[in-house]
Amino acid sequence: MTALDTPFPPVSPPDPEAAAAARARQSRLTKPPGSLGRLEDLSVWAAACQGVCPPQALDRARVVVFAADHGVTAAGVSAYPSAVTGQMVGNFDAGGAAINVLAEVAGATVRVVDIAVDCDEPLSPAIGAHKIRRSSGNIAVEDALSAEETTAAVMAGRQIADEEIDSGADLLIAGDMGIGNTTAATTLVAALTGTEPVVVVGRGTGIDDHGWMRKAGAVRDALYRARSVTRDPLGLLRVCGGADLAAIAGFCAQAAVRRTPVLLDGLVVTAAAMVAEELAPGARAWWQAGHRSTEPAHGLALSQLQLEPMVDLGMRLGEGTGAAVALPILRAAIATLASMATFEEASVAGPPESTS
Amino acid sequence: MTALDTPFPPVSPPDPEAAAAARARQSRLTKPPGSLGRLEDLSVWAAACQGVCPPQALDRARVVVFAADHGVTAAGVSAYPSAVTGQMVGNFDAGGAAINVLAEVAGATVRVVDIAVDCDEPLSPAIGAHKIRRSSGNIAVEDALSAEETTAAVMAGRQIADEEIDSGADLLIAGDMGIGNTTAATTLVAALTGTEPVVVVGRGTGIDDHGWMRKAGAVRDALYRARSVTRDPLGLLRVCGGADLAAIAGFCAQAAVRRTPVLLDGLVVTAAAMVAEELAPGARAWWQAGHRSTEPAHGLALSQLQLEPMVDLGMRLGEGTGAAVALPILRAAIATLASMATFEEASVAGPPESTS
Repeated sequence: MTALDTPFPPVSPPDPEAAAAARARQSRLTKPPGSLGRLEDLSVWAAACQGVCPPQALDRARVVVFAADHGVTAAGVSAYPSAVTGQMVGNFDAGGAAINVLAEVAGATVRVVDIAVDCDEPLSPAIGAHKIRRSSGNIAVEDALSAEETTAAVMAGRQIADEEIDSGADLLIAGDMGIGNTTAATTLVAALTGTEPVVVVGRGTGIDDHGWMRKAGAVRDALYRARSVTRDPLGLLRVCGGADLAAIAGFCAQAAVRRTPVLLDGLVVTAAAMVAEELAPGARAWWQAGHRSTEPAHGLALSQLQLEPMVDLGMRLGEGTGAAVALPILRAAIATLASMATFEEASVAGPPESTS
Repeated sequence: MTALDTPFPPVSPPDPEAAAAARARQSRLTKPPGSLGRLEDLSVWAAACQGVCPPQALDRARVVVFAADHGVTAAGVSAYPSAVTGQMVGNFDAGGAAINVLAEVAGATVRVVDIAVDCDEPLSPAIGAHKIRRSSGNIAVEDALSAEETTAAVMAGRQIADEEIDSGADLLIAGDMGIGNTTAATTLVAALTGTEPVVVVGRGTGIDDHGWMRKAGAVRDALYRARSVTRDPLGLLRVCGGADLAAIAGFCAQAAVRRTPVLLDGLVVTAAAMVAEELAPGARAWWQAGHRSTEPAHGLALSQLQLEPMVDLGMRLGEGTGAAVALPILRAAIATLASMATFEEASVAGPPESTS
């Protein structure tokens, strides 16, 4: 890939000096060294992303749900009709969906974006401000997008990230909503990891055995169509992705460019994140994996990105829900680093030299 | 065991009708059936514990940290001196310990109890109100407690649970603080599961290889001393437990008697909970496992209780910290059941019959 193939400038890593200061401070807090486990690592990451130790609490976490339909639903890959995508946009807007509830519990706010829902009129001008087209092509038989639409969708995601960061967001979560979107996401993961469909295809919203076979067939056909673009991230999004996957990739990449941490959600977001890492190498250092979903392709995508999920609760809903459930753990990690007493402050005997 | 051997009345199960109503409501919420995974199970459990669907948010979660020393530290089983236990009581009281910070993030409050710290004067009359003695005996060579002290400690835990529930607590978390307490807890787990010391002994606060060998030897000696009381829960607490383990057992059992849910923490609390289940059969239905610690005996104890931890974050601190980190997940589960829109309310097409 040449520099001309990506719209993103180089990604700089999180601040190593803040990370070192955070590690040093963790070792002085009133607990055995390492005894907070993953919380200690997360606190160090948060400090490095913010470039300051101790890090600030995340008061402006923002979830953006990317809603889009997928032509591949014509192949019978989902248990639900496409009409549900648009209906759920209304549900997000009214605050009744799982992500609305889970974000509120976690102290985050939600924005929904109609990036390619299969309807003429977006629910509102704001929701449709970045709309690329109605649905995406049926990747089993045709490209999801044109080259121009692919670039436009990536740039839409980039702009949405900029809008949120400029508005003060200190942590971003991407969510997905779209009947058929796990078929496209699974195809991306299979293409980027060189994996057979039978290994990666899951049951999405809950398809039966016959639906699973149709889905595996669609992924196989899409992979065959994608064989010439495996090493071309924009080509992959165009041939076997979709407007939502392209926009989420742009969103995750731009967050890293803007030095803003991201909690990844499930299969759809993580598949897009794999493409984002290709478009903006090093971006993954700005991401943590919120959860492990039950979709087999998700585990592969996490391994490829070398990310360890924070929770594993058997969830498979998307919308950003897995990341929202994990957000309080990141808050907890930051709070320990920011607010626990040191051995000196509390007049507690520190760890013996032999075990520190 | 005869009825005379336990101070606890029979435990009734959580409400099956509220559980059924919660299951039915989950199936009508705007998401594919089962897609919230463990969150759905937790919401059903919360409804059953409260006897109402949807369940109330947990506004009065309470952590009680049981602080106590252990004579077995004389055997060199810990990386820290016993003096740290009393110093940490001061740290809890001042709000500087990990559990103070994590409870605050999770919306819970903390109480610390000096149940058997190795000091003459408790930090305050309130903290020392239930003190049983200074430290417990060195279980490698002598009983931890007398029979009278054992009963008194169990009753102290019972009374503390009553105090908290009478004050309005809607969820209880027990925490532990005590240098040497994982040695006693590990012995209890080994005795109750018939496991060899080498399989269950962990590194506690972070002992080196020689310390691990001393700890394994102490557990072996304590197990040998306990061989005649394996089927006698009060006898086990007396011979190879301690005042803290007895009090936590009484606390967890009484919570179940009082129909109050509990989030279990790590090894020490879960070992005591195993004894509580012997003292009050069925109590475990009122408990969820907050986390899985790195201590090998903890996994055994969870298996024996048939409890699946909510998170696995490599933590090994105690104090109730693992349960506090898990509490927001339970809150999230309750919120979905209480606040998500149903398919009818949101005018979203429900799941097809074939997959529901």
